[in-house]
Amino acid sequence: MSSGNDGRELAEGYLGGLLESLGLGVHYSRAERDALFYRDAAGAEVAVLDLVGGYGSTIVGHNHPEIVRYAKQLLDQGVPVHAQFSRHPYANDLAGRLNTILHREFGTTEAYSALFANSGAEAVEIAMKHAEFDRVAKLTALTAEIGRGVEAARAAIDRGAVVAVDEAYHRLGVAAGVSPGAAPEAVVAAIVRVNGERATAAPIFLAPEGSFHGKLVGSVQLTHNAGFREPFRSMAAQCRFVPVHEPEALAKAVESARTTLFDLVVAAGGVRVVERDLPVIAAFILEPVQGEAGIRPFDRETAQRIQRVCAAVDCPIIVDEVQSGMGRTGAFFASSHLGLRGDYYTLAKSLGGGLAKAALTLIRDSRYHREFELAHSSTFAKDAFSTLIAGRVVDLLEADDGALYRLAAERGERLTAMLRTLQDEFGTVVEDVRGAGLMIGLEFRDRSDSPSGIIAEQSRAGLLGYLLSGYLLRVHAIRVLPTASATNTLRIEPSVYVTDDDIALLEKGLRGLLVVLREHDGAALLPAA
Amino acid sequence: MSSGNDGRELAEGYLGGLLESLGLGVHYSRAERDALFYRDAAGAEVAVLDLVGGYGSTIVGHNHPEIVRYAKQLLDQGVPVHAQFSRHPYANDLAGRLNTILHREFGTTEAYSALFANSGAEAVEIAMKHAEFDRVAKLTALTAEIGRGVEAARAAIDRGAVVAVDEAYHRLGVAAGVSPGAAPEAVVAAIVRVNGERATAAPIFLAPEGSFHGKLVGSVQLTHNAGFREPFRSMAAQCRFVPVHEPEALAKAVESARTTLFDLVVAAGGVRVVERDLPVIAAFILEPVQGEAGIRPFDRETAQRIQRVCAAVDCPIIVDEVQSGMGRTGAFFASSHLGLRGDYYTLAKSLGGGLAKAALTLIRDSRYHREFELAHSSTFAKDAFSTLIAGRVVDLLEADDGALYRLAAERGERLTAMLRTLQDEFGTVVEDVRGAGLMIGLEFRDRSDSPSGIIAEQSRAGLLGYLLSGYLLRVHAIRVLPTASATNTLRIEPSVYVTDDDIALLEKGLRGLLVVLREHDGAALLPAA
Repeated sequence: MSSGNDGRELAEGYLGGLLESLGLGVHYSRAERDALFYRDAAGAEVAVLDLVGGYGSTIVGHNHPEIVRYAKQLLDQGVPVHAQFSRHPYANDLAGRLNTILHREFGTTEAYSALFANSGAEAVEIAMKHAEFDRVAKLTALTAEIGRGVEAARAAIDRGAVVAVDEAYHRLGVAAGVSPGAAPEAVVAAIVRVNGERATAAPIFLAPEGSFHGKLVGSVQLTHNAGFREPFRSMAAQCRFVPVHEPEALAKAVESARTTLFDLVVAAGGVRVVERDLPVIAAFILEPVQGEAGIRPFDRETAQRIQRVCAAVDCPIIVDEVQSGMGRTGAFFASSHLGLRGDYYTLAKSLGGGLAKAALTLIRDSRYHREFELAHSSTFAKDAFSTLIAGRVVDLLEADDGALYRLAAERGERLTAMLRTLQDEFGTVVEDVRGAGLMIGLEFRDRSDSPSGIIAEQSRAGLLGYLLSGYLLRVHAIRVLPTASATNTLRIEPSVYVTDDDIALLEKGLRGLLVVLREHDGAALLPAA
Repeated sequence: MSSGNDGRELAEGYLGGLLESLGLGVHYSRAERDALFYRDAAGAEVAVLDLVGGYGSTIVGHNHPEIVRYAKQLLDQGVPVHAQFSRHPYANDLAGRLNTILHREFGTTEAYSALFANSGAEAVEIAMKHAEFDRVAKLTALTAEIGRGVEAARAAIDRGAVVAVDEAYHRLGVAAGVSPGAAPEAVVAAIVRVNGERATAAPIFLAPEGSFHGKLVGSVQLTHNAGFREPFRSMAAQCRFVPVHEPEALAKAVESARTTLFDLVVAAGGVRVVERDLPVIAAFILEPVQGEAGIRPFDRETAQRIQRVCAAVDCPIIVDEVQSGMGRTGAFFASSHLGLRGDYYTLAKSLGGGLAKAALTLIRDSRYHREFELAHSSTFAKDAFSTLIAGRVVDLLEADDGALYRLAAERGERLTAMLRTLQDEFGTVVEDVRGAGLMIGLEFRDRSDSPSGIIAEQSRAGLLGYLLSGYLLRVHAIRVLPTASATNTLRIEPSVYVTDDDIALLEKGLRGLLVVLREHDGAALLPAA
């Protein structure tokens, strides 16, 4: 069949051109464990050490033999990929096993229900939708209660009761332009109007600065990076980004979001205006280790403060474990290290074992609305293929009493120790090494004032990390990439099977890079013309 | 590993209970062509004729041998599923072949770029986001132009020019509370303020009544069904649903959405208020054959009117081919039968060949913003596995000069003819038979007044279609389901390989069902206690 490309790149050709110019335009034809392979001009296969790992999707490596074997078995068995609206015991089984892990790591016995998706962003949107469903349910109950209060007050007013002019009355006055001399009927009308406006306002989401939670219409608004979020801000409910490391910041954000509805109570023959808290915040969402912000783990103190502030105002917490979960930090849930208990957990990336598009959202019983199951669905989600593969990934992680969790921790320490040695040696170039387990960020100092024109220019353009990635790929056959919203930080997220040789190779490559940067040797960073 | 279910169903247990009560709670363990298999109490495999086909995902059937063989080959080859930010020639290849088909079916040579997703809803959200990106670009250009106009007017006012009091001035007065005697500086301030408010308003999407475009935060607002959409209405930009079959309705909807920004022009020494059209409608979206609304194809006249009205106001059209595309109606694009040219096409479901989670959005060159490639991405999308499988599906459809398209048309006619015979025979029970190719709806008359209590009750609850589906499954081993938003209509969407025997089996089953309904034999519809 003839090609309709007409010589043009029709699948993200602009991005492709940029990658080409940075020396990243390589076509990988094979993948195995922590290696991606391409063919050179002579047709020979060249191995590249892959530390991007699908942005954290390959905790068990690329094409894990057991996952591949199982996938082929499922294909041979002819499992039904499409059997919507029937019984899915394997989905229930996976949910049950995730509950076992969750109960163990968080020391709880509360059940969490699972809802299935096809990507991390979809899992986040399920959490967002359910949190809004929950908020609307509370709001509906509150407005019904207020409706009864207002009716009772109306009846009292008809019998001659007057509305007390107190502080709440004055606040209503400010909100609705009602003056102390207004007729009681006008007060009632003002309350109905103001409440109506406030009750239909968009929900507010809260998230730490630097958050990344996906790029769909809703989830992109929870993603702090302005370049990803701003162009689409008119399309969905807004998030308020909070500098949560400042001790009072979250409490202040919660307080400033606080909104009330007005109610009327009849007491001692009179009518009084009262205010009732409106559930306006749908949820607080965070990544236990922020990924795209430059691999930044939360500390326990901050996490505990978040938990306390949210508990005080009954604000649900969505713990986004899409990248940090599935063992990457030495436990299935990275948040378990922080003792941070979520009302929701989102899982994706490595859940699919580097092969399947598996994703899901866990929702705790005490928040769960079972009617939500009739409001939400997806044709592709909860299929036997991806769900069973996710189950096999859980098998691998849990085998031998969690040997892979221990391996992730041990490999992470080994890698981090090597990087810290380089940091000590190249303190003028390396800004920071941080992370948790096998989710590590290597941050470079800003080079905007480098005497090398190319280094200074790319730094100012926010492209330094891409330039460094191109160099490591071209010269050392190592694949890294910067985090999406902090491009001076290279992400290092190999599988648990990363070897000492791999680490030695990385050390050699980085050492070469650090010398180039220390000496401001811009020419060495550029692809040969 | 121990199960954390504690005997509870943790994967949509409420839905599972409902399905059980309707006799639909079957666990399918194998799938092949148009059959799903379960094991009966004795362990014997029972074949079910599946006419749901993954809501239209199995145009080449379940587990097509060539697709399964190819999937296993990809697994054996170790293709890299995760190789983000590298070169993806297979994605470009798929985009090129889809262009070839599009050019052939629509008689155009304009190139369409492809952006990749993981589900139909995600593909719709890419179209939504890009349409908004495009709208904001236009809006930004317009406000910059107005900014220059206002500056020039300010300068003229400083030199003593006055603002003419004309009709546009009065409209500004109404919008901003400016009276004819206002100082010129106040007029300028009012314009800046009103424009600022109008320019940041949410975009408007337009769609026909009955539309279904997914259930993510953004896309669910394009889905007409109130039960799916309303609980989440505060979360995202709203859609206006238009009764497009009324000749003037769309033009009226466009007119009523019309909004202007105010500008100032300096002419003949004076300053005049003028109004400029604000691009407020982001896009019109439609399914060429509405799926969840009860399988309702558009007629050519309506489609052509939509095209004309949208062209007149430069409103982009998103053609959602997620369910109708990939050959189901006898052409790759169902919209090609209508001569309806889209600015965007969304593809998913059958694109993955019943196996992979493949989805993408095509965007025409004349609308395409290449910078969007830097704003949108997805970890799981554009992977080699699903993209190469989609390519193989295109191979199958295009083989032998499009033999499968012809087969879809022929099988569709055969099925429809059989259903029409039943409609003629059971006119008191069957309301309508409609569709296109292998996307067929069988609508039953409302039975709310049936003398059978169970039939009347389930009809009134909107559950009649599910009750009928349970009967067909239990008694005749036929799997059908109602469309999601029109539950009196059963969807019949087999693969192109549906046989004459399958059609005869369906005829027999439906005949049994129609007799039961005609005789109001409610007891026959219920599972044995």
